Amino acid sequence: MKFWKIFLIILLIVGFALFSFPSQGNKETENPISQVLIGLIVILFIAKVGGYLAERIGQPAVLGELIAGIIIGNLALFTGWEGVNFLRFNEHIEILAELGIIILLFEVGLRENVRNMLKVGFSSSLVALIGVVFPFLFGYFSSQLMLTGKPSSVYIFIGATLTATSVGITARVLQDLGKISTNEGRIILGAAVIDDVLGLIILAVVTGIVTSGAVSFSEVSYIILKAVIFLIGAIFLGVIFAPKILKLAQRLWIEGIMLVSALLFAFLLSYLANKVGLASIVGAFAAGLILEEAHFKGFKETTYTIGDMIRPISSFLVPIFFVLMGVQVRIETFKELHVIWLSLVLTVVAIIGKQLCGLGAIGKNLNRISIGLGMMPRGEVGLIFAAIGRKLTIPGTNIPVIDHGTYSAVVIMVILTTLITPPLLKYSFLPKKATKP
Amino acid sequence: MKFWKIFLIILLIVGFALFSFPSQGNKETENPISQVLIGLIVILFIAKVGGYLAERIGQPAVLGELIAGIIIGNLALFTGWEGVNFLRFNEHIEILAELGIIILLFEVGLRENVRNMLKVGFSSSLVALIGVVFPFLFGYFSSQLMLTGKPSSVYIFIGATLTATSVGITARVLQDLGKISTNEGRIILGAAVIDDVLGLIILAVVTGIVTSGAVSFSEVSYIILKAVIFLIGAIFLGVIFAPKILKLAQRLWIEGIMLVSALLFAFLLSYLANKVGLASIVGAFAAGLILEEAHFKGFKETTYTIGDMIRPISSFLVPIFFVLMGVQVRIETFKELHVIWLSLVLTVVAIIGKQLCGLGAIGKNLNRISIGLGMMPRGEVGLIFAAIGRKLTIPGTNIPVIDHGTYSAVVIMVILTTLITPPLLKYSFLPKKATKP
Repeated sequence: MKFWKIFLIILLIVGFALFSFPSQGNKETENPISQVLIGLIVILFIAKVGGYLAERIGQPAVLGELIAGIIIGNLALFTGWEGVNFLRFNEHIEILAELGIIILLFEVGLRENVRNMLKVGFSSSLVALIGVVFPFLFGYFSSQLMLTGKPSSVYIFIGATLTATSVGITARVLQDLGKISTNEGRIILGAAVIDDVLGLIILAVVTGIVTSGAVSFSEVSYIILKAVIFLIGAIFLGVIFAPKILKLAQRLWIEGIMLVSALLFAFLLSYLANKVGLASIVGAFAAGLILEEAHFKGFKETTYTIGDMIRPISSFLVPIFFVLMGVQVRIETFKELHVIWLSLVLTVVAIIGKQLCGLGAIGKNLNRISIGLGMMPRGEVGLIFAAIGRKLTIPGTNIPVIDHGTYSAVVIMVILTTLITPPLLKYSFLPKKATKP
Repeated sequence: MKFWKIFLIILLIVGFALFSFPSQGNKETENPISQVLIGLIVILFIAKVGGYLAERIGQPAVLGELIAGIIIGNLALFTGWEGVNFLRFNEHIEILAELGIIILLFEVGLRENVRNMLKVGFSSSLVALIGVVFPFLFGYFSSQLMLTGKPSSVYIFIGATLTATSVGITARVLQDLGKISTNEGRIILGAAVIDDVLGLIILAVVTGIVTSGAVSFSEVSYIILKAVIFLIGAIFLGVIFAPKILKLAQRLWIEGIMLVSALLFAFLLSYLANKVGLASIVGAFAAGLILEEAHFKGFKETTYTIGDMIRPISSFLVPIFFVLMGVQVRIETFKELHVIWLSLVLTVVAIIGKQLCGLGAIGKNLNRISIGLGMMPRGEVGLIFAAIGRKLTIPGTNIPVIDHGTYSAVVIMVILTTLITPPLLKYSFLPKKATKP
């Protein structure tokens, strides 16, 4: 069979490279660029093999990338071979991954525009709000049932970890399926942006309650103010000025100016979003929404659209993010029974809570299941909440708000909601069999 | 004037971003991705402005990028403002720059092929050899004249710093001028590869002489063996297997596979080159030579050539390398008079020594001046030699082989040979006025 030949040859090459690995992990002597190169070789290779296998069984490529990452990241656990463990700790590769997710959200934003997003703005807001309130309540009460006798700060924190949607996976699946420019896609993406703002507020409120027993309204309003000023300011000023700046950049013509102008804009808004406390990908998405293909018409390089020029960069960087997301998964986490129970309950309420989101979407013929599924993956934000909860102590004691077992349960919930999103979202978008026969 | 409007608007935006800089340089509190983003914004912005201004006065864009880098890297010296000093130390941005130069040499290699390079192989070898021998002798004797009464190890080291050509600048200028696929271009690029192998040998010989007073022939032959096996092995196996692997990869079709296969190949050879002690860019160049457009014909994405797909990545990453090269320049170095004298002498002999290279090129109608100029820029390799010379001591004493002043002189020589290459190379390629009137 021809396919096995491919794998054999490529495996030989990679095997050759692997042999020359620093198996003792002597970071000091290893040249940093050399470690980045071998890391990229491993990541890109398994990303494409994983993506290919996933597509062969009818799944979005991103699922294959995640699972390939989980396998490679946990090789040491099963085989004892620690040659690729450096992938977990290599900060340079992490930065490349973060640039990858910024580029992905920028690319996704480019396929949409501000007008279409505002049209579904009310639905997005409702979806986001429901998707925060219900998971929080479900998380609060279910953890109260599971972990009896703890102070309420514990339940509040667990509830909070269930609120934040991680838009990376959903955006990628929507892209893999070609569903970004659907009303469902727009509602999900808009809701994810609002969700990020709500997440900031929740974090401030929850830590305020735990540390000082009270919510600082001035702090919370400052946070809201910054985020709202950024979003409205970026979109308002961007829509007015971006075309003008690009028009002027066209006259300052130099090789690559079209792409670099676009990247500058994406990086600038990502940076500013980060500065006001939002996720950098929210800024990148906003940058993509603001820039429209039409603004690039005057550039000399117009045989390519701006989307064409971003695609190679995203083909290179985006898989790094998803493989690394898999690599970060610690399978060791899945070993204590009570942790597994807690995690399963959290996963179920996390799913149900976000499924209710779909009800917030207003309009006819909307696929509300898809919207709920799109809001489902939790990600880094949930983990950030949990990590903060580990550092905070229950008032008057030395016990952390989120103990080790609870943290593991949250991690498992994040993994499960992330892994089941790609296939479910795909099936939810399949054309239905005639409902009215 | 319209152009000022552009600058004003973009400066306003960047100014806004700059304001939110961590001016005290508190690295700890700053989010790494945030620092990388603002670094990329500054670098890409000044790269394009510098490149544009350079082209307006008829110079290759790379010169503008270098000078823009020097200006931004030395702002603190002139203005006292240290807001962009982090660019000098940010390792993540350095990695992006190194990936940039790897991509550039890969791209340059893609425009050529192994057959054409081998045709000029003899010329390349002679050019490389002459370009090592003469600069070494000139460096040895001129430093003997300038710095009298030192042990010969000092002169040997100074001679060695003059031998290595830095191909990055030349490759970029050849690309800016569209002169890669000329015989001169091929000879220069081939010679630069051989030069890198010679550089390894010289380093081993020179440090052997200084540390143990003798050359370890077994060590030197091991170094040569590794480098030669890599180059011949990569090219031989690559030419045979690359088309087959790509043919098979076409069947394993998935979004982005064509680009990622090419990148995997480039990264793999860069990594292996690094492992045998060669510069990673030599591996990237070899990878580019081996891959030919023809091998990519069967991919579904063939509306784009592989060159088209690499270009956006290089537009993004390559300027980072050259701006950062400028940022690393310390203008403080130019202050002691005797250092300046030494550096000027070294620069002059560095230029003359490499100019003789052109004589090694065999064939009619070759622009030998261009070949000599193409070999002129010294770069990181010269600095590496000098840095090793600073750590080694003159046998029987505590005095470093390369003292502080000599090191500064070498740095200035590197800067000057680098900065004058782009304009001179450009002029040398201009069509000559009728020589026989």
